[in-house]
Amino acid sequence: MDPNIDNDYLKVLPNIKINPEEFEETASWGRRSGSGLNGLTLGHRNSRVRHSSSDSETNRTSTFTTAEDNGEVNYRSTNLMDTLDDLPPGIGQYDDFHTIDWLRDIARDRMRHRHIIKKKNEGFWERVKSAHDAWSGWVCVLLVGAATGVCAGIIDIGTTWMSDLKGGICTEAFWLNKEQCCWTGNDTTFDDEGGCNQWYTWSKLFHLAGPGSYIISYLFFILWALLFGALAAMFVRVFAPYACGSGIPEIKTILSGFIIRGYLGKWTLLVKSVGMMLAVSAGLSLGKEGPFVHVASCCGNIFSYLFPKYGRNEAKKREILSAASAAGVSVAFGAPVGGVLFSLEEVSYYFPLKTLWRSFFCALVAAFVLRSINPFGNDHLVMFYIDYYNPWYIQELIPFIVIGALGGLYGSFFIKFNIMWCRYRKTSALGKYPIVEVLIVTFITALLSYPNSYTRMNSSELIKLLVSRCGPGDNMELCDYHRNLTKEDPFDSSAFAGSGVNTALWKLALALIFKSLITIWTFGMKVPCGLFIPSMAVGAIMGRLIGIGVEQLVMTYPNSPLFSNMCRTEGLCKVTPGLYAMVGAAAALGGVTRMTVSLVVIMFELTGALPYIVPIMAAAIMSKWVGDALGREGIYDAHIRLNGYPYLDSKEEFTHTTIAADVMRPRRNDPPLCAITQDSMTVEEVENVLRNTEHNGFPVVVSRESQYLVGFVLRRDLNLAISNARKTLEGIVSNSLVYFTGHVQASMHGPAPLKLRKILDMAPVTITDQTPMETVVEMFRKLGLRQTLVTHNGRLLGIITKKDVLRHIAQLENQDPESILFN
Amino acid sequence: MDPNIDNDYLKVLPNIKINPEEFEETASWGRRSGSGLNGLTLGHRNSRVRHSSSDSETNRTSTFTTAEDNGEVNYRSTNLMDTLDDLPPGIGQYDDFHTIDWLRDIARDRMRHRHIIKKKNEGFWERVKSAHDAWSGWVCVLLVGAATGVCAGIIDIGTTWMSDLKGGICTEAFWLNKEQCCWTGNDTTFDDEGGCNQWYTWSKLFHLAGPGSYIISYLFFILWALLFGALAAMFVRVFAPYACGSGIPEIKTILSGFIIRGYLGKWTLLVKSVGMMLAVSAGLSLGKEGPFVHVASCCGNIFSYLFPKYGRNEAKKREILSAASAAGVSVAFGAPVGGVLFSLEEVSYYFPLKTLWRSFFCALVAAFVLRSINPFGNDHLVMFYIDYYNPWYIQELIPFIVIGALGGLYGSFFIKFNIMWCRYRKTSALGKYPIVEVLIVTFITALLSYPNSYTRMNSSELIKLLVSRCGPGDNMELCDYHRNLTKEDPFDSSAFAGSGVNTALWKLALALIFKSLITIWTFGMKVPCGLFIPSMAVGAIMGRLIGIGVEQLVMTYPNSPLFSNMCRTEGLCKVTPGLYAMVGAAAALGGVTRMTVSLVVIMFELTGALPYIVPIMAAAIMSKWVGDALGREGIYDAHIRLNGYPYLDSKEEFTHTTIAADVMRPRRNDPPLCAITQDSMTVEEVENVLRNTEHNGFPVVVSRESQYLVGFVLRRDLNLAISNARKTLEGIVSNSLVYFTGHVQASMHGPAPLKLRKILDMAPVTITDQTPMETVVEMFRKLGLRQTLVTHNGRLLGIITKKDVLRHIAQLENQDPESILFN
Repeated sequence: MDPNIDNDYLKVLPNIKINPEEFEETASWGRRSGSGLNGLTLGHRNSRVRHSSSDSETNRTSTFTTAEDNGEVNYRSTNLMDTLDDLPPGIGQYDDFHTIDWLRDIARDRMRHRHIIKKKNEGFWERVKSAHDAWSGWVCVLLVGAATGVCAGIIDIGTTWMSDLKGGICTEAFWLNKEQCCWTGNDTTFDDEGGCNQWYTWSKLFHLAGPGSYIISYLFFILWALLFGALAAMFVRVFAPYACGSGIPEIKTILSGFIIRGYLGKWTLLVKSVGMMLAVSAGLSLGKEGPFVHVASCCGNIFSYLFPKYGRNEAKKREILSAASAAGVSVAFGAPVGGVLFSLEEVSYYFPLKTLWRSFFCALVAAFVLRSINPFGNDHLVMFYIDYYNPWYIQELIPFIVIGALGGLYGSFFIKFNIMWCRYRKTSALGKYPIVEVLIVTFITALLSYPNSYTRMNSSELIKLLVSRCGPGDNMELCDYHRNLTKEDPFDSSAFAGSGVNTALWKLALALIFKSLITIWTFGMKVPCGLFIPSMAVGAIMGRLIGIGVEQLVMTYPNSPLFSNMCRTEGLCKVTPGLYAMVGAAAALGGVTRMTVSLVVIMFELTGALPYIVPIMAAAIMSKWVGDALGREGIYDAHIRLNGYPYLDSKEEFTHTTIAADVMRPRRNDPPLCAITQDSMTVEEVENVLRNTEHNGFPVVVSRESQYLVGFVLRRDLNLAISNARKTLEGIVSNSLVYFTGHVQASMHGPAPLKLRKILDMAPVTITDQTPMETVVEMFRKLGLRQTLVTHNGRLLGIITKKDVLRHIAQLENQDPESILFN
Repeated sequence: MDPNIDNDYLKVLPNIKINPEEFEETASWGRRSGSGLNGLTLGHRNSRVRHSSSDSETNRTSTFTTAEDNGEVNYRSTNLMDTLDDLPPGIGQYDDFHTIDWLRDIARDRMRHRHIIKKKNEGFWERVKSAHDAWSGWVCVLLVGAATGVCAGIIDIGTTWMSDLKGGICTEAFWLNKEQCCWTGNDTTFDDEGGCNQWYTWSKLFHLAGPGSYIISYLFFILWALLFGALAAMFVRVFAPYACGSGIPEIKTILSGFIIRGYLGKWTLLVKSVGMMLAVSAGLSLGKEGPFVHVASCCGNIFSYLFPKYGRNEAKKREILSAASAAGVSVAFGAPVGGVLFSLEEVSYYFPLKTLWRSFFCALVAAFVLRSINPFGNDHLVMFYIDYYNPWYIQELIPFIVIGALGGLYGSFFIKFNIMWCRYRKTSALGKYPIVEVLIVTFITALLSYPNSYTRMNSSELIKLLVSRCGPGDNMELCDYHRNLTKEDPFDSSAFAGSGVNTALWKLALALIFKSLITIWTFGMKVPCGLFIPSMAVGAIMGRLIGIGVEQLVMTYPNSPLFSNMCRTEGLCKVTPGLYAMVGAAAALGGVTRMTVSLVVIMFELTGALPYIVPIMAAAIMSKWVGDALGREGIYDAHIRLNGYPYLDSKEEFTHTTIAADVMRPRRNDPPLCAITQDSMTVEEVENVLRNTEHNGFPVVVSRESQYLVGFVLRRDLNLAISNARKTLEGIVSNSLVYFTGHVQASMHGPAPLKLRKILDMAPVTITDQTPMETVVEMFRKLGLRQTLVTHNGRLLGIITKKDVLRHIAQLENQDPESILFN
C-alpha cells in the first residue's frame, strides 16, 4: 500500500470547506469567454444566462408537484432516472459548456423505452405511442436527410447563380444562371467565353472590347467578390458568430459529449447557408463540404426536437447528429457511403452499429433528394466523373507514391502554417477586425486569381478539368498535344506536348503556389469555409503536373526497359495525366484531414474510378504516413486543440505512467473533498455545502470518520429536493437530518427527517487510487463518463472529472492546462 | 439500501468453502466437449491437455529464477504487468476456451511499449529495437496481406482446374484448366460447349455422341463431384475438424475475446484451403468467402507469432486478426474497401481507428498480390463487371423495394430452416456421419444440377451472366429477344422476349427453387463452406426474373402514364434486367447476413455500379428491415447462439431491469465468496483455498470481518508465487503469514512473512450491487472485462464474470444458460 496515503488525508473537517475552483465552475464563464469559442458575442452570453435561469424556475414549479406528506420527497416514478423525464419539454438537463453523462442518458432512455413497452398492451393509443417510439428514429433521420438535401439544393443553386454574377448577367431574367440563361434562350451559338446571346458579360453590357473589356470584367469580378465577401462576413458577425469556419472541429466536440448551446440552432443554419453561398461566390479559396456538415447537423438538431426521445436526451440526440453529418458529406460530394464513413471515422465519437445503419439511410435520402432537385442540371450524381478506363502499370506506382508523399508534406505544411496564422489571429489585434480581414483576403484573392484562367474558374471546375482526359473535342491549352490523328484512337494514347500544354504547365504551377498559400489565410476566417475542395484542387494541380511530366518522360524514352510495357507500339504509350491528378487530389486531402478509408471511398464516389483503387489507396496510405511522421494531428484536431475544446481524443493513445491518485481532486495539500454523509447531516449543513461550493455533484459517504462510499448525488437534484421539501413537506426545518439510507431510525424526538434516497445514484462509477490513468482515460472515452469517484480500500479519496483528465493530458503534453474550455 | 442484503450474507466462514462450480472451471471441459465446438476430435482434446501442463511446468522453472532472500517474491520488474512478459515466448497466458482480459492485455502492451521508448536512447541496438517495434504492426499486416493474396491465388487456380476436371481434361497437359488449355493450343475454333481441340470432354474422350455422350458426361460429373466431396469431408474429419463451416461465427467469437486453440493454426489453414477447393469443385452450393476470411485469419495468427508484440498478447493479436479478416473479404471479392467495412461491421469487436487503417493496408496488399497472380487470367479486379450505364427511373424504385423485401424474406426463411437443420444435425444421429451426409448432399446436388444449364455452371458464372446485359454478340437463351436490328443501338433498349427467354425463365425459376433449398442443407456441413455466393446467386435469379417481368410489362404497355418517361419513342423503352439481378443479389445477401454499409460497398466493388447506388441502397435497407422484423439475428449470430459460443453481442441492446446484485456470485443461498485477507491468512490457508476451489482469481479484502476490498489476485500468479517462495525463500513455512499490504508489521516472533503485494492487482474494476445490468453489460462490452467485483458501501459482496453475464442474458431470453460454452 502506498505509505503516502495516510488517514489524515481522508479526514473531513467539521466545517465543510469551500473549494470554488473545483470541477466544473459555471462562474468562470465570463472570465474566459474572450479566449473561448471564437467570435462569441455578448448577446449570446446573455441568452445563455436567461436560459439557465428559466430552466431552474420551471423545474422548481413542475418537478416536485406530487410530493406527499410521508416525509419523503416523492417523484412520480420509483427511479431516479425517470425523474428527469418529468421535465417540461424543450429544456435540456445540462448547462451550456458542460459535459454530458452518456451512461446516465442512455440509462434514462432505456428506462423510458421499457416504460413504453410495458404499457404497450394497455390499449390502442399506447400501441400507437409504442410504434411511434420505435419508428421515430427512422422518421427523424428521414426528415433530416430530406431537409439536408433541400438545403444543399438551394445552396448549390444560389452559389451557381452568384458565382456567375461575377462574370455577367442574364438580361432576359436576372435570376437565371449562365447555363440556365443559355438554355432558356434556346441559343446554340456560344461566344468565346462560353456565353450566349441572352447572357451578357459585364463588358458586353457596357459595349466594350479589347483592353477596356478586360479591365471592366476584372473590375466587376473584384467588386462582386468584395461585395459577397463583405456580406458573408457581416452576416456571420451580426447574426450568428457560430456560423464561421468549417464547423467540423466544433461538431466533433459536440458529438464527443459537450454542450454548446446555439451552435446547431436555426439562426446558425440560416446564416451558415447564406454565408456559404456568399463566401463561395466571392471566389475565396474555400469549399462547401465542412459547412454542409454543419448545416446538416443543424437540421439534425432542429428536427430532433420533434421527437422527445432524441430532443430531450443529449446522448440520443448525438445519434441523430452522427447521421446528419453523414448526410452533410453525402450532399457535398454526392457520396452517401463516403459520408457514412466520414461520419464514422472523422466526426463521430460513439458510433453504435445501429447508428451506422441510420446514417446510411439518412445519407441516402439526402443524396436522393439532392439528385431530384438536380441543382447542376445534369444527371450525374458523380461530380468529377471520369470516362477513361486506361490501365495503369506497376512502375507507375513510384510516381503515385511520390505524389502521396508530397500530399502528406503539403498537408503538414498547411496545418502548421494555418494553425500559426489562426493563433496569431486569436492573440493579436487582427481578431478584432474579422470583416476587414475577409475583405483584404477577398481582394487579394480576386486580384490574383482573375488573370490566371485556372484560378479564375471555381475550384470544382478546375478539379473536374484536371482529372479528365483530353478527348477529341477538347481544344483547351491543357489538351494541346502533337497528336498523330491518323492513328487508330489517337486520344487513347499519350503524345508529345504542344505549346499550349507548356503554357498550361506554367499557369498551373503559378496556380499551385497561389492556391496553397491563400488557403492558409482563408481557412479560419470568420466566414463559413471548408477545405476539402481547396485541398483537392492543390493536390490535383500537383498530380496533373507530375502526370504530364511522367507522360513526356515516357514519350521521350519509349524504348527504355523501364517503360517498355507501357508502350506497345512505337510512340503508342499510355500515361493518363488525369489519373495522376485524381491521385494527387486524394493525397493532398488525406494529408490535410488524415482520413483513410472514407477518403478512398469519397474519391470513388466522386470520380467513379473503381479500377484505380490501388493507386488511390497507395497514395492515401503514403500521404497519411508522411503526414503523421511530421505531425500527428489532422487539421480538425489541430483546430480543436487551438481552440481548447474539451475533446478527449479517442484515436490518440495515452502513454504516460500516471495513476488516478496523481490526477484526482483534492490534491495532496488541498482541503478535503466535499462529501455528504448518509445519515448525519442536517438540512442546514447540506444547504451550506450547496451554497459554499460550486461542484456539480457530491459523493455520499457512510460517515465522516469512515468515508466509505455510498453513492453520488447531483447538485441540481439536491437543490431542487431540499427547496421543494422546505416548501411542501411539513416538519422539515434547518435542523432536520438528511437521510440517504433506506430506513430511518425511528427517533421520536427531534424534527422530521428528510429522506432523499431516491435522488441518490447508488451506482456511481468508481476506481481505485492505484488505477493507471490509461485505464481511467479508456473508461472516460468508452463509457462516456462525466466523472468517476476514487476510492482506496472502499474509502472515498477523491474525484476525477473529464476536465481533470483533459487538463492532465494537456499538462503531460506541456500545454497550458488552463487553455482547455471548462466542461 | 436494499434491506435484503444484510451483513450475514457477507460473513466469511472460518474455513474457506469449496465452490467447484464457480466461474471458470477448466475441469468441466471433458464433460461438455460433446456439445461444444462442433466436430472436435479426441486428438485435439488431448493436445490441449498437453499444452496446458507444459505451460505450467515451464513457468515454474523460468519466471521466478531471480528470487532474492529478502523475504519477498521478486519479479524482474517492479510492476505486475511486466512479469507476464518474462514468460518464455510461444506460451500464451490464457487457457483454451477462456476469456481474455482486454484491459489487462492492453495495459501490458503499453507497459512494454513504454519500456522500449525509455531505453530507446541507450544505444544503436535499442534504437533498432524501438523502430522494429514501431513498424512491426505494419510489417505484420504486410506479410499477412501478401500471404492471404498468395493463398487466395493458389485456391482460385486449384478450384478452376478441379471444377473444369468435372467436364473434361486437357490432353496435352492435364494440369491446365480449360481456358489455359485452349490458350496454349493457340486454337481459335471452339465447339458447342466452348471447348477446343486440346480440351477433351469426357464424352469426347470416349468417342461418344448423342444420348450416350450426355449420359457419360452426366456420370463423370457426378463421380467427380462425389470424389471431391468425399475428399473434402475426409480431410476435414481426419486432419482438422476446425476447418469446417464458414468460420465466421467462430472468428467473431475469437475476436470478441475468447481463446480457441488451434482454430487458427497451420493445419486448419492447410486443410481449409484444400477442402475449400474440393468442396467448391464438387459443385456444392457454397462459396469461398467465409472460408477465405478463415484462411486469412489463420495467416494473421501464424504471422503474429513472428512479432512477440502481437503473438504473445491476445488483445493485440486481435488487431492483426481484424486486419486479416478484411484481407479475406478483399481477396474473396476483389473488394478491399468492402473487406475493411465487413471486418468493421460484421466480424470485429474492438476496432480502434488505428486498426481500421492497418486493415485497409492489409486488404490493399492482399488485393494487389492476388491481382499480380491474376488467377483468372483477366485484368479486371472487378468480378462481375457491368458495362452498361443505362439510367434507372424513379418508378423502378417500386420493384427494387419489392426485391429488397423478398431478399429479406428469403434471408429469414434461410436462417430459420438452416438453423433448424443444424440443430437437428447436432442432436440426432446424423451428426455422427458427417462424410455420409456430405456424400448424399453432393450426390443430390450433382444429380439435380447437371440437367439445368443455370445450375450446372458454377454460381459465380451464373451471377456474372445474370447481372450482364445482352450485347450484340450474345446469343444465349437469356438474350433471345425479338430485336428490331434496324434501330439505332438496339441492344441499349428493351425488346419483347423470344422463346429462348421464355425457356430461360422456366429454367431460372427451377434453379431458384433448387438453389434456395439445397443451400439450407449445405451450409453447416462438415466441409468448408461460405454462403455469400449462393445467397447472391439466389437473389440474382430472383432479381433477373422480376427484371424480365418488368421489362415485358413496360414493353406491353409503353404508353401507360406509369411508364411514359421510360419509353422515349414508341417501343424504345429502357429497362435493364441485369440491374434487377444486381439489386436482387444485394437484397438476398443482405437478408442472410444483415450487413448494411459493407454490403453496398462490396456490391460496388463487385460490379463497378456506382451510378446505381440508390437502387442498391434502397433494396439493402428494405431487406434489412424486413429481415429484422422477422428475426433479429443474421446467420452468423444465429450460428453463434446455436453453438453456444460465449459471444457478448455488441449490437443487441440489453433491455432488462435487473441489477448487479441479481447476477453476481455467490447467490443469496450460496456459500460466501472465496476471498483472501490482506494480512491475516497463512500460507497453508491460502494453499487450501487454491486447492479447494477452481476460481481463476480471488478478491483480497482488508479482513474477514470488514470485507473492504483491497484488490484482486489471479490464481495463476498466486500459485506460482507461493510454490516458488516455498522452494527458494528461506523461512517460508505453512505458518507464514501472507501479506498483500505495503509494509509488514515487524513482529520478531513467528515465521518469516510472505510479501505478495507485487502480484496484487490494486485496480480491479468494481461496481456497486445497485448498478443496473445494462451498465454492467456495457462495461463488459466496451472495456473487454473478464470479471468485475461487486461492492456495497466499499464492502465486497460478490463477483460477476463474463460467463455470468452471458448466462444471465441467456436466461432472460428463455434459453438454457448451460448451453453457453464456458469462458
